Amino acid sequence: MQWTSEPTISRKVEETEFKLNCQGRSIPGILWRPEKQGENGRLALLGHGGTSHKRSDYILAVARWLARSHGIASIAIDGPGHGERLETGQKPDFQTAWDAEETTANIVADWRASLDAVQDFLGQGPVAYWGLSMGTMIGLPLLAQEPRIVVALLGLMGVWGPNKKQLLEAAPKITCPLRFLLQWDDEIVPRERGLMLFDAIGSKNKALHAHPGLHSAVPMITMRKTTHYLAAHLNVD
Amino acid sequence: MQWTSEPTISRKVEETEFKLNCQGRSIPGILWRPEKQGENGRLALLGHGGTSHKRSDYILAVARWLARSHGIASIAIDGPGHGERLETGQKPDFQTAWDAEETTANIVADWRASLDAVQDFLGQGPVAYWGLSMGTMIGLPLLAQEPRIVVALLGLMGVWGPNKKQLLEAAPKITCPLRFLLQWDDEIVPRERGLMLFDAIGSKNKALHAHPGLHSAVPMITMRKTTHYLAAHLNVD
Repeated sequence: MQWTSEPTISRKVEETEFKLNCQGRSIPGILWRPEKQGENGRLALLGHGGTSHKRSDYILAVARWLARSHGIASIAIDGPGHGERLETGQKPDFQTAWDAEETTANIVADWRASLDAVQDFLGQGPVAYWGLSMGTMIGLPLLAQEPRIVVALLGLMGVWGPNKKQLLEAAPKITCPLRFLLQWDDEIVPRERGLMLFDAIGSKNKALHAHPGLHSAVPMITMRKTTHYLAAHLNVD
Repeated sequence: MQWTSEPTISRKVEETEFKLNCQGRSIPGILWRPEKQGENGRLALLGHGGTSHKRSDYILAVARWLARSHGIASIAIDGPGHGERLETGQKPDFQTAWDAEETTANIVADWRASLDAVQDFLGQGPVAYWGLSMGTMIGLPLLAQEPRIVVALLGLMGVWGPNKKQLLEAAPKITCPLRFLLQWDDEIVPRERGLMLFDAIGSKNKALHAHPGLHSAVPMITMRKTTHYLAAHLNVD
């Protein structure tokens, strides 16, 4: 892992960019850390949504809430064909760009390599995963393979999209506590597909939280509560 | 309203039994109040489930949490054919005993009369309704007619049971914020019927919280959080 920026501090949260190499792919990421005295060894992995990137407004908000209110560090990386991994003239697209099986396997490898590298630097501790929409398309297969992740926040996804077969295979293997957000009037992922995916998840301790509204209209209070949820399960609340 | 017991105090919560007359029916109830210095003018109506009664363990737990942690008074009344309204030798039964339309109308009247009487005594303030299973069969029609109720906790019910037609008529008329609990493996109320009822509720601010488990297996932490939810919406948190 190479640091590609100096640490900057904004509103009590330190932010540093990094790059790492995974199977020949160059993965750009960001590490957010609470001020030293507040850091408690917990780490969250933040998976951004489709057409979004590692420093989208809501990813930044979640990272800062986790750091400031709960002492939890976090990282985000750009997905394939997103953010800094977007080629000139290309538009971010999580559907046509995906060879379902290969892309899913690569993304899981990217995340595991990122977790290895960041734990080498910060030390080992309980890990959370947070990811909605494409963040769940990526997160579900990751959770099924990564025992270091002890709690997850998923949602806005279903048995749907380019890697729906991988999602349905991964879901029953998941055992960690998780909360799954569903937008009742989701115009992208049909409600029934979301319910079907929640149903398939193996965790005994899982909760579906559904609210009225379109795909991207998750209420701010609901977003904020996702960080309380992760913090509670990382035993820092 | 007549008091039918002396107030007793247990674990900082005062409990008094009452009876009131509504359209010729004698309605037995209980009032729980926080210690005087903690009382804040808020009131919750607690609707018990089928085959249960006004002082079931979970009703008592909710009443005491509301009083002790949030300064909220509450009342519960026995439903028709339940608790003290059960005739000798009769078993509590919320299905065969119900003439759907008449029973629903009577129960709504019972609750409104109880609210009138208790507000005469305690004064007027924001009111919450809490009721699962039969507590939702009763609560939904009540909410549709009672503007004094500003927040509700419902669940474990669907477009199902003797008054399902009344439920489906009432649901779109409800506008207050509410949380709806659903047990994902409910063996009594089919999941799809529960989702259908949540869908029909008119409130813009509504949330479905679903957890794995059978009808009566709502996790304790979920029960406790229902009181936080009501308190937050009664503006006492």
